[in-house]
Amino acid sequence: MSELRSRAVLDTLDHVAVSVRDVAESVKWYTSRFKCRVIYQDATWALLEFGNVRLAFVIPEQHPPHIAILGDPAAYGEPQTHRDGTSSVYIKDPDGTDVEILALAKK
Amino acid sequence: MSELRSRAVLDTLDHVAVSVRDVAESVKWYTSRFKCRVIYQDATWALLEFGNVRLAFVIPEQHPPHIAILGDPAAYGEPQTHRDGTSSVYIKDPDGTDVEILALAKK
Repeated sequence: MSELRSRAVLDTLDHVAVSVRDVAESVKWYTSRFKCRVIYQDATWALLEFGNVRLAFVIPEQHPPHIAILGDPAAYGEPQTHRDGTSSVYIKDPDGTDVEILALAKK
Repeated sequence: MSELRSRAVLDTLDHVAVSVRDVAESVKWYTSRFKCRVIYQDATWALLEFGNVRLAFVIPEQHPPHIAILGDPAAYGEPQTHRDGTSSVYIKDPDGTDVEILALAKK
């Protein structure tokens, strides 16, 4: 129970977006080997849902690889609101990797 | 409830290991901004626990960046057993990224 309480206060990693060469090929490779669900897919990026987190594939010339963490984007800058109702701010970690502070859509 | 059932059958992503230049600097940057817990840290790699998944930082010359998914490593090759009781097999995805099929330690 104390472990459950302690885990509950940790932040949630919403998704990790990794660079790929061919989105369709990556989606096919992962979905044919692992139990995951395609949430979105086009030629420039795709989003796969696993049981606990989401994995995105991006063509880096179109979308930067990044790590998305749920939080309050306004604490880090001027949030951009997206078409799906989410809002986010991108910051750079010490290696220059984009970290997206993401607020989910209000229901 | 149907959503809960459907999510339960999806595979679990155990951790994602991303390349960094300086493990200590990355650990400091992430832990000072986000609620996460350092599970392991040395000069060559570190493991941070978030609420739903773990994020590893690796010096790529020492440990390859990779994506670790819980599953049966024996279905993919000859499992290597690690000191912590876990066992795993590494395979390559279409971009050459290492994917670790990981079985947790039996309790």
